[in-house]
Amino acid sequence: MSLLVVGSTAFDSIETPHGSKPELLGGSSTYFSLASRLFTKTHLVSVVGEDFPRASRMLLEERDVDLSGLETKPGKTFRWSGRYSADMNDRTTIDVQLNTFGDFKPKVPHQLKSVPNVFLANGSPATQMSVLDQVSQPRFVVADTMDLWIQTDREGLGRLLSRIDGLIVNDSEVKQLTGHTNLIRAGRAALAYGPKLVIVKKGEHGCFLFSQFFHFALPAYPTEVVVDPTGAGDSFAGGFMGYLANCDTINLGNMKRAVAYGTVTASLTVEGFGVDRIAGADRHTVDRRYQELLQFISF
Amino acid sequence: MSLLVVGSTAFDSIETPHGSKPELLGGSSTYFSLASRLFTKTHLVSVVGEDFPRASRMLLEERDVDLSGLETKPGKTFRWSGRYSADMNDRTTIDVQLNTFGDFKPKVPHQLKSVPNVFLANGSPATQMSVLDQVSQPRFVVADTMDLWIQTDREGLGRLLSRIDGLIVNDSEVKQLTGHTNLIRAGRAALAYGPKLVIVKKGEHGCFLFSQFFHFALPAYPTEVVVDPTGAGDSFAGGFMGYLANCDTINLGNMKRAVAYGTVTASLTVEGFGVDRIAGADRHTVDRRYQELLQFISF
Repeated sequence: MSLLVVGSTAFDSIETPHGSKPELLGGSSTYFSLASRLFTKTHLVSVVGEDFPRASRMLLEERDVDLSGLETKPGKTFRWSGRYSADMNDRTTIDVQLNTFGDFKPKVPHQLKSVPNVFLANGSPATQMSVLDQVSQPRFVVADTMDLWIQTDREGLGRLLSRIDGLIVNDSEVKQLTGHTNLIRAGRAALAYGPKLVIVKKGEHGCFLFSQFFHFALPAYPTEVVVDPTGAGDSFAGGFMGYLANCDTINLGNMKRAVAYGTVTASLTVEGFGVDRIAGADRHTVDRRYQELLQFISF
Repeated sequence: MSLLVVGSTAFDSIETPHGSKPELLGGSSTYFSLASRLFTKTHLVSVVGEDFPRASRMLLEERDVDLSGLETKPGKTFRWSGRYSADMNDRTTIDVQLNTFGDFKPKVPHQLKSVPNVFLANGSPATQMSVLDQVSQPRFVVADTMDLWIQTDREGLGRLLSRIDGLIVNDSEVKQLTGHTNLIRAGRAALAYGPKLVIVKKGEHGCFLFSQFFHFALPAYPTEVVVDPTGAGDSFAGGFMGYLANCDTINLGNMKRAVAYGTVTASLTVEGFGVDRIAGADRHTVDRRYQELLQFISF
């Protein structure tokens, strides 16, 4: 089954201990779809400026990402620049220029309104909700969010959470959302906001998956060289949603496998600058790494 | 098979967000043996002062911990006091009085020299080495260490590491020892110092197990209320060594099970102040929690 992602498209300038790279193709919808396309047909809804180059468009289209929902508006594409600390666990935003993404009003093209699986990448709850108002009863909707919306629009976020099936957040976000410092408690408490499924990402420490009926912990893939952590979270979501989109039923076993595939696609992304590594990956690489991950955690 | 632990015995005064408790029985050998005695006969080698109360001795002896190697010297028992941060991830040492532990020269009683499994709790490499010089060809020796010895006696530590089978360290220690910021790389690099097995503890994030032939990751038991993290590492080591001491062979499967038992005994310790919870635990509680942990990680 096909998959719709709504999020940002950007150019990132990134400094890590491995080097500096200007103007790399990035953004949540890009990282997500370059991961999810390894599993299923992915339709991208986003916005770029007139400066968005043909090469970037080609990179996505050649990997079977449908760009019929990628709007081009007068002005420039979203720019972000940031610097990572020596251990890669902290990053500082140096500059943000929202440009055409500043007043992003996602428009889901008519032919995509019935796509059954939807991922709402990080955005204001109002923007995310506007997508749900445009699509027709998807079978599975998952959203990301961030500290900004937890702080500034808790009410809107609450309404969004009551309308989605799954929430993907990182450890600090789920603590902030729920007020619990213990991650297990925080993850379980987040279920009370509505989603049937809460995934808590912990970077190099893997992730937790919480539902009313089970909890599950998965370590990260044992990556030895992290070159650039940008996009890890969106690539995780892409692998997760991409795998599940192709499953007939969203059950426990499939969710665990999906989380493992998300772990694998995130591990590929961080091993290269920008989208280099994930854009170059094929399903064979992903499946081999999936088996390695299972080996790493097999009891 | 029986098990020898050499380490500290202390009284700890602890402040956590859950309260303050003065003069709690503590020390590495205490936490270790209260965990390991759940699996196998444990012999404790340590030192206390004349103030060490009969009640503390009884607490250990009633749980079948052999105190024939617990030396009493003129003066007072080791005192430590510390305070934990709100999220329990940081602690500040408020006061240390080494007292009789200050010039601890472990004496392994004659009847314990042939105990086949040995754990060297944190201490100076010279002290740890002196134990190895007293015992007769144990089949399995594991040691703990800390940042202090990595900084001040790298040479002595290197000699120790070449003589032991396993090393148990935490994430920051293995990074410091090897100079690698990536934990997977650091854990593998630590093998080059000699031990066939390196266990890296990551607190709430679980642990890694490294050998030449395999790597293994295990999440922590999903504890929702951490009351006092003191002794978690030593309780982990106690569960790990206690389980392995009873295994006929030290193979991959048994090591994984041992790491899971260590995870369980550590999870019990942190749920109470001092040794309260681990001292009150029985094998049934441990086995139930072991099954819950397997459920939590089962793929």
